[in-house]
Amino acid sequence: MTDLPASIVRGDLQDQKTTGYQSPLGVTRTQTVRLRGVQTQSGFTFDPVEVSYQTLGTLSARRDNAILVCHALSGTAHVAGLHPDTGRPGWWDFHVGPGRAIDTDKFFVVCSNVLGGCDGTTGPMSACPGTGKPYGMDFPFVSVHDMVAVQAKLIEYLGISRLFAVIGGSMGGMQALDWAVHLPEQVRVCVPIATCAAHNAMQIAFNEIGRRAIMTDPDWNTGNYTPDRRPKHGLAVARMVGHVTYLSEYAMTRKFGRTLQPRVNAVDAEVALFTVESYLHHQGKSFVNRFDPNSYLYLTKALDQFDLFDGHPPENVLRGVKARFLVISFASDWLYPPAQSRELVRLLKRSRVAATYINLETLYGHDSFLIENPEFANVVRHYLENEYRNASFKEAGAAI
Amino acid sequence: MTDLPASIVRGDLQDQKTTGYQSPLGVTRTQTVRLRGVQTQSGFTFDPVEVSYQTLGTLSARRDNAILVCHALSGTAHVAGLHPDTGRPGWWDFHVGPGRAIDTDKFFVVCSNVLGGCDGTTGPMSACPGTGKPYGMDFPFVSVHDMVAVQAKLIEYLGISRLFAVIGGSMGGMQALDWAVHLPEQVRVCVPIATCAAHNAMQIAFNEIGRRAIMTDPDWNTGNYTPDRRPKHGLAVARMVGHVTYLSEYAMTRKFGRTLQPRVNAVDAEVALFTVESYLHHQGKSFVNRFDPNSYLYLTKALDQFDLFDGHPPENVLRGVKARFLVISFASDWLYPPAQSRELVRLLKRSRVAATYINLETLYGHDSFLIENPEFANVVRHYLENEYRNASFKEAGAAI
Repeated sequence: MTDLPASIVRGDLQDQKTTGYQSPLGVTRTQTVRLRGVQTQSGFTFDPVEVSYQTLGTLSARRDNAILVCHALSGTAHVAGLHPDTGRPGWWDFHVGPGRAIDTDKFFVVCSNVLGGCDGTTGPMSACPGTGKPYGMDFPFVSVHDMVAVQAKLIEYLGISRLFAVIGGSMGGMQALDWAVHLPEQVRVCVPIATCAAHNAMQIAFNEIGRRAIMTDPDWNTGNYTPDRRPKHGLAVARMVGHVTYLSEYAMTRKFGRTLQPRVNAVDAEVALFTVESYLHHQGKSFVNRFDPNSYLYLTKALDQFDLFDGHPPENVLRGVKARFLVISFASDWLYPPAQSRELVRLLKRSRVAATYINLETLYGHDSFLIENPEFANVVRHYLENEYRNASFKEAGAAI
Repeated sequence: MTDLPASIVRGDLQDQKTTGYQSPLGVTRTQTVRLRGVQTQSGFTFDPVEVSYQTLGTLSARRDNAILVCHALSGTAHVAGLHPDTGRPGWWDFHVGPGRAIDTDKFFVVCSNVLGGCDGTTGPMSACPGTGKPYGMDFPFVSVHDMVAVQAKLIEYLGISRLFAVIGGSMGGMQALDWAVHLPEQVRVCVPIATCAAHNAMQIAFNEIGRRAIMTDPDWNTGNYTPDRRPKHGLAVARMVGHVTYLSEYAMTRKFGRTLQPRVNAVDAEVALFTVESYLHHQGKSFVNRFDPNSYLYLTKALDQFDLFDGHPPENVLRGVKARFLVISFASDWLYPPAQSRELVRLLKRSRVAATYINLETLYGHDSFLIENPEFANVVRHYLENEYRNASFKEAGAAI
């Protein structure tokens, strides 16, 4: 069991600025590129599409050491290092950097904000070419595969014809799966973490509650809100729901238990009495400041509709897969339960795809992939290094 | 494993009218009584307090066969039989009736709406004596113990000095625990089901999300809403959150899976694509029609603040307990996990309180206590009948 300090719970890394957290990468920057002509599965063409991304490390002369890191629902292109404006570390600073699980001394790491997102890549907040106003709900439906199609354009732009690895947790894991299935020649290694081949009814239900909270907030205004009047209450409630589902009962009990807020009257029905309540309020509020409500609707819809097999026999879908897999789940993750990962591994193996599976006994729920975790880091680092060594050896052999 | 038809999921019993469900009790009626002088723990006096209640079966000549059934958060006094107006069965019709788990041929069953509720007992919707207008948020904080104090008044009014049993699930289980601890001479048997001695941080968190959804709905209007403009969106979201936490992943997968709504465009981000989404909308809407938003705030606050031991050594709190316990939990209940019941049983036994514990392997989550379940029914029926036989035998012996 990995038993971490009670302070290590989601959001804390983002709050590290005040506690003097230092990233070994120092300050890292995100850049934006305009790429031409990406068509979505639903038939809409973005031309151009803007993509916000970050690269860390150095691309090898053979261009064979690129790792695409795919972010989850609320993630950004800023994967590691300190943000130049806020000074805050990237969302995976624990695991991406020199000597870390994804070692930037060895690998060239790319992370881009997803299509439909709100961190610089084209999304509902972007100006619609015809009107110059934000797309809002006129933004076309985007799928996880559309996100991957945009990432593929970016990879091509960066001069990479084949990724060494694609890795991601939760929604990022779905992207990794989509890469391996739909762009089989371009992925050597696929590392889906705490994810699934398709949402079950409960995963859809929690997302729909969040969407409902946003869309019934009068300030949502059918998606046509203004910057000074956004559906902040609805988005905050959506985030609170998400947040609780990302944690484990253990993590919440350890961090909050039934601790009371100071100076609060227990008989006032309107106030937050327990610290866990004010913590959730804080999480809701800070999310509202950094996330676009319409983007939340689009991305959760993409999550819910993602279906790797989509009614086809899994062996047909997996037939062309070339990547080798490391599938990781967490025992305490009740939102993306290990059974989903096990089933995925079963199907991969039945289709003769090389797959290693590990279910880590962490106690922190779905968020386990976002927090400091030496066991997780070791598993990922060793797997990537072994696979890279073997792949290089084979290529060298083939070249002889 | 109890493997029930997929149709048996919360809400379905309430929807049975259309499918011709018949209750063996036929039509049952609820009545209201005005009782004098009940003071809450916070020092507020209700005088009078109105109590809506239902009785089923016949009180024995010895007045020793009364069972108080305590309802959960969204329950009512209408526990079993068909409602005279709606024709719908009571919330526990599966388990209360002739020959059922709580056998109305043998026992005199009492069920009353809780203080702070909205089904006829004094609550935030009631007229405030001074103004004649609804209390709204001027309603005083009420605790689970205050609910019990009102039930005790009702029991006294019914001429019962000692209950044979007090039984309830979830919030109803908390009431049962409170009865056994605070009115030890008045309870022979206590049956807390799918409940706990105090909410953990996650249980508080889910309730707080619901409260937040209600209180940030502009129509909540700090609790002063009018009947035609209630915070229906907030209450619906609160109910959706609650509803999902009451179900198991298995139940939702079995009932809905990824089934799609008919005639819905998958690329429209605004509509419910999956049946589970429209089901949740329906649950939210129908709850709005029958529940008061302020009452939801008060009752969930009472749940969160309930703490059977409240910082005192459990053995001190349990020292005076006279009741014998049957504690029931459900393996698939992730909202009130079995560990909470096990811990309760451990503390009871350590305090030399007679306690039988059973963790039932149902698959339907927290709602398992509300649905048809022969195993559950057998356990409860046999326990109650055995205890009643033994108690009667002892009394007969004492009288000789």
